[in-house]
Amino acid sequence: MKAARYYGNRDIRIEEVAEPGVVPGAIKIKVAFCGICGSDLHEYLDGPIFCPSPGHPHPLAGEEPPVTLGHEMSGIVSEIGEGVSGYEIGESVVVEPYFVDGTCAQCREGLYHLCENMGFIGLSGGGGGLGEYIVVPERWVHRVGAVPLDQAALIEPLSVAYHAVERAGGVKAGDVAIVGGAGPIGLLVAAVLKGMGATVIVSELSAARKQKALDTGVADYALDPTQVDVPAEVKRLTGGVGAKFGFECTSVNVVLTMLFDAVKPRGVIVNVSIWGKPAMIDMQKLVLKEIDLRGTIAYVSNHARVIEMVQQGKIDLAPFITGKIALDDLVSIGFDTLINRNETAVKILVQH
Amino acid sequence: MKAARYYGNRDIRIEEVAEPGVVPGAIKIKVAFCGICGSDLHEYLDGPIFCPSPGHPHPLAGEEPPVTLGHEMSGIVSEIGEGVSGYEIGESVVVEPYFVDGTCAQCREGLYHLCENMGFIGLSGGGGGLGEYIVVPERWVHRVGAVPLDQAALIEPLSVAYHAVERAGGVKAGDVAIVGGAGPIGLLVAAVLKGMGATVIVSELSAARKQKALDTGVADYALDPTQVDVPAEVKRLTGGVGAKFGFECTSVNVVLTMLFDAVKPRGVIVNVSIWGKPAMIDMQKLVLKEIDLRGTIAYVSNHARVIEMVQQGKIDLAPFITGKIALDDLVSIGFDTLINRNETAVKILVQH
Repeated sequence: MKAARYYGNRDIRIEEVAEPGVVPGAIKIKVAFCGICGSDLHEYLDGPIFCPSPGHPHPLAGEEPPVTLGHEMSGIVSEIGEGVSGYEIGESVVVEPYFVDGTCAQCREGLYHLCENMGFIGLSGGGGGLGEYIVVPERWVHRVGAVPLDQAALIEPLSVAYHAVERAGGVKAGDVAIVGGAGPIGLLVAAVLKGMGATVIVSELSAARKQKALDTGVADYALDPTQVDVPAEVKRLTGGVGAKFGFECTSVNVVLTMLFDAVKPRGVIVNVSIWGKPAMIDMQKLVLKEIDLRGTIAYVSNHARVIEMVQQGKIDLAPFITGKIALDDLVSIGFDTLINRNETAVKILVQH
Repeated sequence: MKAARYYGNRDIRIEEVAEPGVVPGAIKIKVAFCGICGSDLHEYLDGPIFCPSPGHPHPLAGEEPPVTLGHEMSGIVSEIGEGVSGYEIGESVVVEPYFVDGTCAQCREGLYHLCENMGFIGLSGGGGGLGEYIVVPERWVHRVGAVPLDQAALIEPLSVAYHAVERAGGVKAGDVAIVGGAGPIGLLVAAVLKGMGATVIVSELSAARKQKALDTGVADYALDPTQVDVPAEVKRLTGGVGAKFGFECTSVNVVLTMLFDAVKPRGVIVNVSIWGKPAMIDMQKLVLKEIDLRGTIAYVSNHARVIEMVQQGKIDLAPFITGKIALDDLVSIGFDTLINRNETAVKILVQH
């Protein structure tokens, strides 16, 4: 079968590999779609980060480069391993792409996403959605029912967004949230907030992204920080109070600083973005407004609820799919578009 | 009567002022003891901060300089205003020293300490515990029963510490907490944690303060960061896991950074200190460990429980009183000791 394999920095090759065979306790999936994630781009441009480097296999995945990429995948069950029950050949599934040891302090508390030895299928090893078939332990396979397979490939990034909103704690209908940045994750965070009935204000420089946030209906307001004083406008829109929640989806310090001003006292700011450098924080605001600044990473026991929200129509993933490409075009079209022309692109899917 | 009056930066005068008369809804208190707070020192050295400057009265206190200082006070009821019931002349009380408007969004949610117009009795105006008598609205007076009046003067800073621990959320017996800094607030935070049954690790440079933390029994371990790798030692003491809670009580960036390493994944760090500058934060640790960094300021509806903890013997305030001085010696002995020789001093009380 064909697969995109990560050899190292700026070295991804589409090549023929052996089709994996099903094993006991696992499910073999014929991959339908696999999204390109910002992490894939980071591995390509700045990696290896989560991908192994030669001589340094992930402790659980146990693979050295090359590894098959792709962790945002949907597909259909093609073979069922011994001891697995409740699945049918041909039904639609997605993968929660983890390696966890199950024994560390966090795993024992159910926080397996913070496992000391955490790794990702499709980055650390274990095959990936950028191969035509993958074999995944039953634990990490989730049925999606009638969700179309292209949209289902977005369940993984949507789970990242859902978990970020969950980390904010108790978002409910009518709450006001400000999302800093309307890139792929910012838009999906907005979609989750909107799906929960919140009023969503997006702050975004790019006109195209602002428009996307409004056109998809995930934002009630899209503000350009070069045109308006965003915290002042948020206060105006909230009767002088400020937003209850803020979500940092840019890793740009000025956006984080803006959120400290835009949230109300006791506001919660969730940092969703990955920072390559430290942030400067105005501790006086943290203290005098009793702000909570919270980190969030990936997802934990979120897939079932996320799939349900999509099935119930609370979140429409279709408008976030801005391209479908062949595996052969992964780097030349997919990566190139996302790295060099990413203003209008949200999620590009590889279609097998 | 005699009172310490703040005229401005480095200008505090002990002078004769008119004794305040009781008014309806208020209680007149004969002040017994009043502690010197770090805020008083800040007003003296760097102020006015909370104190008014000429032409800029606090919107609720309505006073211009000079104002009477002192907000950590205990005393006895000397007169009871019209419409106040349930108090007896001669009983021991403390003051929760607030001005709040009662009408802003935060006040309406019960978060009066975050009132948009919040001020402090003894800083913003309204008299102070560094005068012999004070008249305080009934709402802000709390009975302390048999708590000795010198210890009762520490109820106010202890409430700051209690609220900081409350902000951490759900500290319970057996939890491990690391407190960065064993100054007055760090020690009281440790005392509250210990009173709740937590295991307390203190990180502190000063040998005298480390000894104080151990001698008073509020710390189980006192670590010198110049001698040991504090996060490594915290991990060793917690079976490789890390502390569940961290408390920043120094406003020193290296201490905050240490706490990010010393807490476990999903650890909560409460910043109790007042920072005069921004902090540098390692966002990758915030994200990958899903740390919560929370601000805390003053106290809100905490006095009743704090007084109860002292009455139940869960917290012994006596060892934190390191000096009692006359009002005339406020600056020459009290401030001078705390500014220039503060390693062994914890709380200095003015005794009327």
